[in-house]
Amino acid sequence: MKNSYNKIAGHDIGRMVAISDAVFGVAMTLLVLEIKVPEVHGNDKELAIAFLKLMPKFLVYFLSFITAGIFWMGQAAQLEHIKKSDRNLIWINLLFLLFVSVLPFTTAFLGDYIDHNFAIGIYWLNIFLLGLMLYINWTYATRHGFIEQEIEAGVSEAIKRRIVVSQSLYLGGALLCFINSYLAIAVIIAIELNYAFAFFKGRR
Amino acid sequence: MKNSYNKIAGHDIGRMVAISDAVFGVAMTLLVLEIKVPEVHGNDKELAIAFLKLMPKFLVYFLSFITAGIFWMGQAAQLEHIKKSDRNLIWINLLFLLFVSVLPFTTAFLGDYIDHNFAIGIYWLNIFLLGLMLYINWTYATRHGFIEQEIEAGVSEAIKRRIVVSQSLYLGGALLCFINSYLAIAVIIAIELNYAFAFFKGRR
Amino acid sequence: MKNSYNKIAGHDIGRMVAISDAVFGVAMTLLVLEIKVPEVHGNDKELAIAFLKLMPKFLVYFLSFITAGIFWMGQAAQLEHIKKSDRNLIWINLLFLLFVSVLPFTTAFLGDYIDHNFAIGIYWLNIFLLGLMLYINWTYATRHGFIEQEIEAGVSEAIKRRIVVSQSLYLGGALLCFINSYLAIAVIIAIELNYAFAFFKGRR
Amino acid sequence: MKNSYNKIAGHDIGRMVAISDAVFGVAMTLLVLEIKVPEVHGNDKELAIAFLKLMPKFLVYFLSFITAGIFWMGQAAQLEHIKKSDRNLIWINLLFLLFVSVLPFTTAFLGDYIDHNFAIGIYWLNIFLLGLMLYINWTYATRHGFIEQEIEAGVSEAIKRRIVVSQSLYLGGALLCFINSYLAIAVIIAIELNYAFAFFKGRR
Repeated sequence: MKNSYNKIAGHDIGRMVAISDAVFGVAMTLLVLEIKVPEVHGNDKELAIAFLKLMPKFLVYFLSFITAGIFWMGQAAQLEHIKKSDRNLIWINLLFLLFVSVLPFTTAFLGDYIDHNFAIGIYWLNIFLLGLMLYINWTYATRHGFIEQEIEAGVSEAIKRRIVVSQSLYLGGALLCFINSYLAIAVIIAIELNYAFAFFKGRR
Repeated sequence: MKNSYNKIAGHDIGRMVAISDAVFGVAMTLLVLEIKVPEVHGNDKELAIAFLKLMPKFLVYFLSFITAGIFWMGQAAQLEHIKKSDRNLIWINLLFLLFVSVLPFTTAFLGDYIDHNFAIGIYWLNIFLLGLMLYINWTYATRHGFIEQEIEAGVSEAIKRRIVVSQSLYLGGALLCFINSYLAIAVIIAIELNYAFAFFKGRR
Repeated sequence: MKNSYNKIAGHDIGRMVAISDAVFGVAMTLLVLEIKVPEVHGNDKELAIAFLKLMPKFLVYFLSFITAGIFWMGQAAQLEHIKKSDRNLIWINLLFLLFVSVLPFTTAFLGDYIDHNFAIGIYWLNIFLLGLMLYINWTYATRHGFIEQEIEAGVSEAIKRRIVVSQSLYLGGALLCFINSYLAIAVIIAIELNYAFAFFKGRR
Repeated sequence: MKNSYNKIAGHDIGRMVAISDAVFGVAMTLLVLEIKVPEVHGNDKELAIAFLKLMPKFLVYFLSFITAGIFWMGQAAQLEHIKKSDRNLIWINLLFLLFVSVLPFTTAFLGDYIDHNFAIGIYWLNIFLLGLMLYINWTYATRHGFIEQEIEAGVSEAIKRRIVVSQSLYLGGALLCFINSYLAIAVIIAIELNYAFAFFKGRR
């Protein structure tokens, strides 16, 4: 029975894509609920000061958004080449989405305890698990022939190499917390921004 | 009038799929709002302890996500074969989505009262209603000829049998609460994980 | 300039459908956040009593879901026949979605003040505005030739008549609040359930 | 490596559209959570007074919805002509969505401090950044040949001109705050409503 069900379940890549966009869309927008309008009784200057105090929350929100964007693009790049799926591949992607959903929490956790190595470790763990699921996703899909035929030989390796390289950088950055936690954060942020905004350099 | 409206309403399976993905995506992500960043004034060790205290909430979140994933896949597997719909079929699916939406509540309810038979009963009821709606969905669709022609004879029976078997297991697990509530939970979780991660075994 | 922009804006019905499903999906799921797990220190019986006290909230949630479902289907039935759009038609649909978004509020408002005519009036107003926008939507689309050619003559009239008849029933139900507010609610609920579950009768 | 990845990432406009609809849908609906059912112990008149006190919140919600709708349509009008994408274009759109997500915050901020120039400035900044991203989006897409071939010469200029004209109007409106803050708000609202509901005039 299990086999026959496995056969019928989840061939439709379209639904996997749709649930991914829904989860990413909600996760990307939810955090804004954490930024509350400050209560101020005063003039413009005092309001501006109260607003500036929210900057760390906006920064955390921004980072959460960038991280989500990076992994959304990473998954999109893979799914563009994946033409078929089975139950296993869907569960790999659902677990990936699970780690997307907790991203707002781990980013907020980091925002509140930016000088604690433990918070950096948890944040790094989330990024690591996201990368791991993408790696498993691609490996599983290639091994089971779910990839489109006409893919260039180099692309498959490039996808895997990219994950390994970026994850090594994230790990290296996180380990810097034993020297200085702010340094670790700064390096992780720099790596993220580098991946997200590489095009600023690439355009010249 | 009712008949003519019935004819024009809801032939588009695509919208039924889209609203399902939206509801599932939101339900899967909403619960993370319940996990609040703890307030700690101390060093890394104290922060780690505060974080570990959140583990039950993460476990509940994980379970909620897995249960949603199981039924999302179950519905997807059915809708892949259903090529037409009428108003009734859409309402069956909307009721199914209603029970998806309350899943975060019942899971959290279970998480808070894990040693109460009543909470186990409510959680089981939710799973039962989800399974019931899927069963009604498939039965209605097959009886009214909404299924694609080329479906293999065995598939239709396999879908129904799968629901009955899994629901019997869930019921059996829930009834174990009269011996020991933790045993009941453990068995329900084991059944869920078995359905979700069956592939770990299947791959060998 | 306005004309040339009007020409380029919004021909894609697909996006209008997608934003509708997103708004409906979120609105349908959001309300569950209002149902909090009760805090109980006691045995199963006490937990069951605390749970039963949540029943009005679940009823309100159920009603909100049904109302959303009715209007989601109403819009879907129209959009199935609408093949083109312009900026105006999109704004009509966005206003429709605005009234979908406030539905959770008005339903909760009714739930808390079920014995106040004012709350019944607000709830009725919401239903009325939803129906009004659907009526405007269909009228505008037919007048501007956005409907598919092959539509049967009777269908267009049936869609409009259906809105007028159901809205008259809702208004009549709401006016009963001057006799007894509970009677008004009961009749509105009965009308909704009749539209939603008409098929239970229709199948015999 | 970066180039080869750039080649494989993000050609699928469909996902960019889907994540946009998800973010817009959530952002448009989230704010309703801020409108709480008032607690009143009294008759209909007192309930009506409590309800009327919520009007500013409803107005803010309405404005937030209209602004989101304006920019949703603006993006949709552009994406209709954009047939290809690369990583850069996707990031431009993700940043656009970032500014969509904070819209509920800035609108609520304005609602609470409607007589402070600073709040008007922040609100204007949000609108400006949304317009800026749309301008960059279109400029980038045209320069890199991602636009469909058959576009009329005038359309591309009309899209850019429209952004510049509307943004100039918003800036002019915002600057009026140095005369009177309510006047500035009123003019911004008037500009928004003019863009949203231009059709009321256009139909005559």
